[in-house]
Amino acid sequence: MGIAQAETAGDITVRTGPAPGARGAVIAIGGAEDKFKDKVILSRFVELAGGRDARITIVPTASSIETAGERYKAIFLGLGVDAADVAFISERSDANDRGIVHLIRESTGIFMTGGNQMRLSAVMGGTRSMESILEKNAEGAVVAGTSAGASILSSHMVAFGSSGGSPRQRMAQMVAGFGLIPNVIIDQHFRQRDRIGRLLSLVAGNPSLLGVGIDEDTAAIILADQFLEIAGRNSVTIVDGSNMYSDVYKVKGHGGISVSGAVLHVLTSGHSYDMIGRRLTTPLG
Amino acid sequence: MGIAQAETAGDITVRTGPAPGARGAVIAIGGAEDKFKDKVILSRFVELAGGRDARITIVPTASSIETAGERYKAIFLGLGVDAADVAFISERSDANDRGIVHLIRESTGIFMTGGNQMRLSAVMGGTRSMESILEKNAEGAVVAGTSAGASILSSHMVAFGSSGGSPRQRMAQMVAGFGLIPNVIIDQHFRQRDRIGRLLSLVAGNPSLLGVGIDEDTAAIILADQFLEIAGRNSVTIVDGSNMYSDVYKVKGHGGISVSGAVLHVLTSGHSYDMIGRRLTTPLG
Repeated sequence: MGIAQAETAGDITVRTGPAPGARGAVIAIGGAEDKFKDKVILSRFVELAGGRDARITIVPTASSIETAGERYKAIFLGLGVDAADVAFISERSDANDRGIVHLIRESTGIFMTGGNQMRLSAVMGGTRSMESILEKNAEGAVVAGTSAGASILSSHMVAFGSSGGSPRQRMAQMVAGFGLIPNVIIDQHFRQRDRIGRLLSLVAGNPSLLGVGIDEDTAAIILADQFLEIAGRNSVTIVDGSNMYSDVYKVKGHGGISVSGAVLHVLTSGHSYDMIGRRLTTPLG
Repeated sequence: MGIAQAETAGDITVRTGPAPGARGAVIAIGGAEDKFKDKVILSRFVELAGGRDARITIVPTASSIETAGERYKAIFLGLGVDAADVAFISERSDANDRGIVHLIRESTGIFMTGGNQMRLSAVMGGTRSMESILEKNAEGAVVAGTSAGASILSSHMVAFGSSGGSPRQRMAQMVAGFGLIPNVIIDQHFRQRDRIGRLLSLVAGNPSLLGVGIDEDTAAIILADQFLEIAGRNSVTIVDGSNMYSDVYKVKGHGGISVSGAVLHVLTSGHSYDMIGRRLTTPLG
């Protein structure tokens, strides 16, 4: 049930919802997004979900804080959406509950809070709720997640790991994510927690994955599985390993991994990157 | 270029090659398959690749033994195939080489040897050779792998890890595989190396993955992304976590993980399992 809308502002037609039949946007937020001032990222999510006609479902499963969902509900209602509801999923039986699945299926935007991403994968993986989120996104609904909620979006997820600028063996544990973004691996709180080393080690492991490290209060907005737009206050770091060489398959224990030829992009708000063509599509200065 | 053939043996029509237009079979072998006696598994691979008309490409990239590819070439030629060639891929530049890609694109069956699966992912991930293997399989060619070559077949691959019957945190490192089998995680040398603990821990991490542990000299033959047939001397262990609960997201360090409700199948040659319906389709006793 994709929602398409056009608002006419003078001569400019502004689309505020997904086009019918098109895949919905996927928004990965690096955590700690602004909730008090401009709310640039959360507003963009609401806009892509249909603006005032948006029906938002909040999935607070990653969080151990009881009120995590309610907090976002208040923000989204404050941004003027038609409806915002919390899908209370704390066990696998909740994630297969018909009422919860119905709520997801009626929404134009789904938002996953931060917390522990392995709680999302272990509790929701393979359930009807997870399937419904995938189906809704294929039909045009926007899916967004912040912090843990961002990690779960890709097929291959960083479950947990250690910080540092240099790649080392066993730095990060991977677990299967929801798979909304197939050939990408997302890391969040990126610069704030110094995670470039582990992202390099993960891309070295299989360079078919594009590494995407998202800073706090920053979002990677992925459109049509191809274009990655940056929004928010800081940067998104992209690691393209197409021509990368490494000794990752030889390194034992927690030894240092050597990598060579990784192509790095560090992009700020307003820039757009073509994930298939693997190039910046916006001019640089 | 799928190859379809029918041989009439009495009243029974035996199909020896893939049907035109259909996705090719994927054969995951648990390592140490018989190469001297009946060669049940390797013969089945040859049969599915077109029998005498088969054109086999062997990818020895996982192996550090120079002659690994040549050894399989001799076996396949001994089984009467039309052509068997080794694709010598030891660096990423080889994996993007036009001659190598042409060899893969002309084949009806691709066979990946054992060795180190992370060498396969790091050297071939995202290259034209990897893409060609995926395309050929989509067009009908059979793709088989033994040991490391089996691990690489799924989207989520066990890169390395430790043995033991009980699941513990950090038991196994995952890396992205080639993705021929999307919702499965494969482990090999399964009973011989006591890997049930790590398979349980990986399925607990995201129960949307079906765990498939393959013993030595045993194969899981996956047809049309749905049916898993067992061939060879030992068993295939299937872990279905659809109704599994665990505390995987709470366990710290290398602590033990508790799991509950995992459905286990241990199946021998001749049995078939429906990976979508998640049930045995052959009678038991």
